[in-house]
Amino acid sequence: MMKFGIVFCLVLVCLQLQAQQYILYSPNGNLKCSLQIDNAGALSYTLQSGNTELIKNSQLGFNLKNAKPLKSDFVFVFTDTSVTDETWNTVWGESKTIRNNYHRRILTVQQKTTGIILQIECKIFNDGLGFRYLFPQQDNLKYFIISDELTEFHVNGNHNAFWLPGDFDTNEYAYTQSRLSDVHAIESAQKYPEIATRNPIGDNIVQTPLLLKSDDGWYMSIHEAALVNYAAMELIVDKQNFILTTTLAPDALGNLCYLSAPCSTPWRTIIVSKKATDILASRIILNLNAPCVIENTTWIKPMKFIGIWWGMHVDKYTWNYSNSKNINIETTDWTSLKPNGKHGATTENAMEYIDFAASNGFDGVLIEGWNVGWEDWFGNWKENVFDFVTPYPDFDVDAVQAYAEKRHVQIIMHHETSGSVTNYERRLPAAIDFMKAHNYHAVKTGYVGKIIPRGEYHDGQWMVNHYIYVAEMFAKNEIMLDAHEPVRPTGLSRTYPNWLACEAARGNEFNAWSKGNPPEHETILPFTRLLGGPMDYTPGIFQIKMDYYDAKKTTQVHTTLAKQLALYVTMYSPFQMAADLPENYRAHPDAFQFIKDVPVDWDETKYISAEPGDYIAIARKEKNGNNWYLGAITDENARTLNLSLDFLDSGKDYIITIYCDGETADWKNNPMDYRIEKYRVNSKTILSQTLAPGGGAAMEITLAKSDELQGLKLYKNKGK
Amino acid sequence: MMKFGIVFCLVLVCLQLQAQQYILYSPNGNLKCSLQIDNAGALSYTLQSGNTELIKNSQLGFNLKNAKPLKSDFVFVFTDTSVTDETWNTVWGESKTIRNNYHRRILTVQQKTTGIILQIECKIFNDGLGFRYLFPQQDNLKYFIISDELTEFHVNGNHNAFWLPGDFDTNEYAYTQSRLSDVHAIESAQKYPEIATRNPIGDNIVQTPLLLKSDDGWYMSIHEAALVNYAAMELIVDKQNFILTTTLAPDALGNLCYLSAPCSTPWRTIIVSKKATDILASRIILNLNAPCVIENTTWIKPMKFIGIWWGMHVDKYTWNYSNSKNINIETTDWTSLKPNGKHGATTENAMEYIDFAASNGFDGVLIEGWNVGWEDWFGNWKENVFDFVTPYPDFDVDAVQAYAEKRHVQIIMHHETSGSVTNYERRLPAAIDFMKAHNYHAVKTGYVGKIIPRGEYHDGQWMVNHYIYVAEMFAKNEIMLDAHEPVRPTGLSRTYPNWLACEAARGNEFNAWSKGNPPEHETILPFTRLLGGPMDYTPGIFQIKMDYYDAKKTTQVHTTLAKQLALYVTMYSPFQMAADLPENYRAHPDAFQFIKDVPVDWDETKYISAEPGDYIAIARKEKNGNNWYLGAITDENARTLNLSLDFLDSGKDYIITIYCDGETADWKNNPMDYRIEKYRVNSKTILSQTLAPGGGAAMEITLAKSDELQGLKLYKNKGK
Repeated sequence: MMKFGIVFCLVLVCLQLQAQQYILYSPNGNLKCSLQIDNAGALSYTLQSGNTELIKNSQLGFNLKNAKPLKSDFVFVFTDTSVTDETWNTVWGESKTIRNNYHRRILTVQQKTTGIILQIECKIFNDGLGFRYLFPQQDNLKYFIISDELTEFHVNGNHNAFWLPGDFDTNEYAYTQSRLSDVHAIESAQKYPEIATRNPIGDNIVQTPLLLKSDDGWYMSIHEAALVNYAAMELIVDKQNFILTTTLAPDALGNLCYLSAPCSTPWRTIIVSKKATDILASRIILNLNAPCVIENTTWIKPMKFIGIWWGMHVDKYTWNYSNSKNINIETTDWTSLKPNGKHGATTENAMEYIDFAASNGFDGVLIEGWNVGWEDWFGNWKENVFDFVTPYPDFDVDAVQAYAEKRHVQIIMHHETSGSVTNYERRLPAAIDFMKAHNYHAVKTGYVGKIIPRGEYHDGQWMVNHYIYVAEMFAKNEIMLDAHEPVRPTGLSRTYPNWLACEAARGNEFNAWSKGNPPEHETILPFTRLLGGPMDYTPGIFQIKMDYYDAKKTTQVHTTLAKQLALYVTMYSPFQMAADLPENYRAHPDAFQFIKDVPVDWDETKYISAEPGDYIAIARKEKNGNNWYLGAITDENARTLNLSLDFLDSGKDYIITIYCDGETADWKNNPMDYRIEKYRVNSKTILSQTLAPGGGAAMEITLAKSDELQGLKLYKNKGK
Repeated sequence: MMKFGIVFCLVLVCLQLQAQQYILYSPNGNLKCSLQIDNAGALSYTLQSGNTELIKNSQLGFNLKNAKPLKSDFVFVFTDTSVTDETWNTVWGESKTIRNNYHRRILTVQQKTTGIILQIECKIFNDGLGFRYLFPQQDNLKYFIISDELTEFHVNGNHNAFWLPGDFDTNEYAYTQSRLSDVHAIESAQKYPEIATRNPIGDNIVQTPLLLKSDDGWYMSIHEAALVNYAAMELIVDKQNFILTTTLAPDALGNLCYLSAPCSTPWRTIIVSKKATDILASRIILNLNAPCVIENTTWIKPMKFIGIWWGMHVDKYTWNYSNSKNINIETTDWTSLKPNGKHGATTENAMEYIDFAASNGFDGVLIEGWNVGWEDWFGNWKENVFDFVTPYPDFDVDAVQAYAEKRHVQIIMHHETSGSVTNYERRLPAAIDFMKAHNYHAVKTGYVGKIIPRGEYHDGQWMVNHYIYVAEMFAKNEIMLDAHEPVRPTGLSRTYPNWLACEAARGNEFNAWSKGNPPEHETILPFTRLLGGPMDYTPGIFQIKMDYYDAKKTTQVHTTLAKQLALYVTMYSPFQMAADLPENYRAHPDAFQFIKDVPVDWDETKYISAEPGDYIAIARKEKNGNNWYLGAITDENARTLNLSLDFLDSGKDYIITIYCDGETADWKNNPMDYRIEKYRVNSKTILSQTLAPGGGAAMEITLAKSDELQGLKLYKNKGK
């Protein structure tokens, strides 16, 4: 990491002024942030691009418990600014390096009556703003409790919004598109009874990352970065004035955050651009997180994996070994239970999956339901659900591990907590010892259900700290983490790159057993949820309709098969599952080839074309290689995208393999119709790619060896 | 353990009757318990002795959350009764064996509308009653939440009560004696601002064990036994009708207990007698607890110990190493802090204490303040307070341990949690590893402050389970436990005999720095708090007045020095501290001899004479020996007790050494005036022992060898 110094540092000693303004411009001068102290000593900010006031005058401050509000009566103490332009190397990611270029201002103010010193730190980038509050070490403030964060985002109109209902326990809703004035969060939340733990907060409250699009063409994403020792933020929508006000997940007592100076809040972030693809390309969230704290990262390796998992979602398998409900994690003799005959995590199945993984070049096999407790795991706010170390009688941990090692496949551990976090924390050291003893280096955690400590939310300060605690514990033990049902990510994978992925959104699994995810779903996620970090979406479902398993089933995946392939490129994750059953891959070996080939780590990414809710096309260059992969997806509408391959090295010949929708493909009527085409292409090629309704296209573009070009026709640009 | 079978078993198939009664007599026939189902199907009970209705008709039942109340609409299903008369061996205790002799009835009823099956299990002993609720495995009830336990104790008059203000966070109040109609708990609680975490619940709510004395001379103690997976009980006093109704510690959400059938509640216990000493002698609480679950108990050994501890209470030492407040358990470089020069737990002090312990025959040395974090440990609801493994720079764990082992003294570990239980549970495995690596076999835990998970009380179900979890974890690792500030004990030391003692009451420490404990305090504790299990009261303070340390101090211990000695006998504990500083013991080597000699484990105990709030005299026979020890204490009033030594073997000569108050002794004016006398005594001796105001006498009675009798005069009974 290089840091190009502090360019200027300005200290004004000026303890009482009227209506002061402190301006900060982005490195390219296009964005302007202004911090204000008004006559009453209240703090606010604005964000402008040219003459457009993207964020109008917006309040800053807090209410504290049993103390004077920190929202007015401030006087200026000093300010300084600095410039940073540095480039840092990712451990894994969408690109090998990331440029971190911003102008920074710290404004220090003091509340006259209390003497409390507060600082606002702003970093303005060419593509947006991050700001946070700092509480420096001081005599007038040590321990305090936030009872309200007052930060506003006063947007300049009744923008179109892509929103999820505000809920401190789940992010597994589908998105609603509406004007801000038409947000009806409770009404929306009621449409998703299939979500296990659902607590919508209020009819006008929405989640972040919130994507907005103004009528004059601005895209704006509001989120937060580096959520550490603080509660997650959601936004209260003022539907008349379009002011979005922070609301934080409370604890059981209604307190929001317990803090102790010196400390800081997470960054409040606003990514802005008139180009949709700039939102996808923004690295503000990662840049605002602390650098990696893991000294040796050589053991952290992105993974592509299969798993004994989808079988449970389609009712081929069960997580539980028996159907007995009278079990007790401490006392039950598991061998005495009557097996239900459908248990997925058997030694035999595990070995079959290991064979399949080894034969097809997968790094790992996830095995869920291997450990005792699943007979009575969910929905009863039970504390001692799992012990994370005891296998079911039909799962021979040692034999499975020995076989996996022989076949050079890693077993991915599974820790479902059922939301019983106190139980998990108690047992975590033993669970880690177990993993180390068995040479496991990756784990998928889960937080289905209401949290214990009872009254805590998934998104509260205590849980936020828990997820980080777990990531740190795993980092110390060289274990990679994929967390399901945690708080939504805020870029902490920069600091803890062993934390490969999270779920924290509506994943593919909902397609197996609920109304599922609308075809537009995957065109919105990269503009929202994925801005905080990778998602374990579990793409790759080939058997689209669930009546294949049972004629009575009416559920289905709401994409074509080709779009499932494209998701490996459009939904970036260093922890990608090939989620379907081996038998379904064996039925389509040609399409499966793309999943086998597509990398999970990248040197470079090009956001070719995108419109949230409609379509996305992204190209990525494999890590340490010359091949490119391109994914293009659409919503429920068929469309043809013109995709320039100008990112290829000019003057070189490439071979493209296109896995795309067949002529009659349609997510609803003919989802499994696909075709595979091969062409010569070069940097002048402009693909005219047609996508079916709910469809997509996945492409591999390899540098051609001369003998491979024989007989391969050049892709012909349209109109030429 | 022997069990003398089930004498008769009676099953009635009778699904609808009117106002039914089910009677159970104590083994000696003196007590009679009646269970009733009235015309509305409501359950109740009474307890009678002859014609005296000690407990009048008292309601049984529950309110459940989001379900029909379990309090009426019950019909009889069946009942059975049995008789048990067995004797079990204690691992340690006031006696070597305990007789468990009771008649038992289980009454099974079904609620008509819900189909829920409920059972009431009663065990009636010659000295009282225990009953509990059972929820058997059934189809109509699995998971449920108790929102109210409705159990009543309807006593037969406006009895005198010895009570503590109801409070789910502390038991560290002094007792108030008043009629039930004069209970004013909030008013009482306000007198104790020195209690760190104080949350009185209501003006008419008192704690258990509650001691009552009726005008016709009945003593009655209401408490609970085997508090496991349930919230602690306190009692709401109806001051007009003298009905005491159960109230349970809630969690942060106001829920009381999360249960899952099959399960049971703790036992509700009523110990009754017309003799005060029978209350002290009752073993009902222990008998109602489950037998020991630790297979090998040979490593569990009662201990007498000293400690680096009182020095902190008298401001000679500090727990903290520096006076810096800006510390962080994860990041602070402790060696960089400026020592405050008063840190108690230094290597040097530890070695001095080890020497003193070794020279005087103590088993162990407790060292508090050895570990980092004390600079900012208390009162701020901070989560990461201690790590339990990192010593201060001036405490060399390995050197201290090596020296202790060389001198055959055990170091007692100290784990103050500061109420941050989530932090403690996270770190407990590492803390245990640390203890094992350093050969520690005993630990004192502490729970000063508000609990984290925030909103939980010290006495709530979650914390009740936590204390047991800790005791179990320590049992597995052959570590003995002394818990400070936990829920009050309910006899669980029978099940977990490694759990030697608890504080859970107002200990001697309050005498160092607050208004202290009134002289009657120690005459009440054995009738109340100690019925649940041993207390680490920390007796043995010789330097009674604190102006010795600082002329400005006005605090003092509210006893004479001789009474401090007597407490080693009257306050039974297998974990007894000699709490004062070595220098104060060195100043009084003759009195100190008693502390050196007195055992901490017993074959037999005789409760000679007692009146709660006034005086107690107890004699105990040492474990596996012939010597007896006698303690007699009084309240603020001087008195002369006639103490028959008829428990001695008849026809044998004994030598008694009496450590008693001097002629002018008085707890306030001359507390350190004591004298030591020696006599010949035998089983016909009746000591006429005068106790000073706030005074006491401690006696050692040894079987005399013939050469020891030379020149020793026979104690002359008064009037002879």
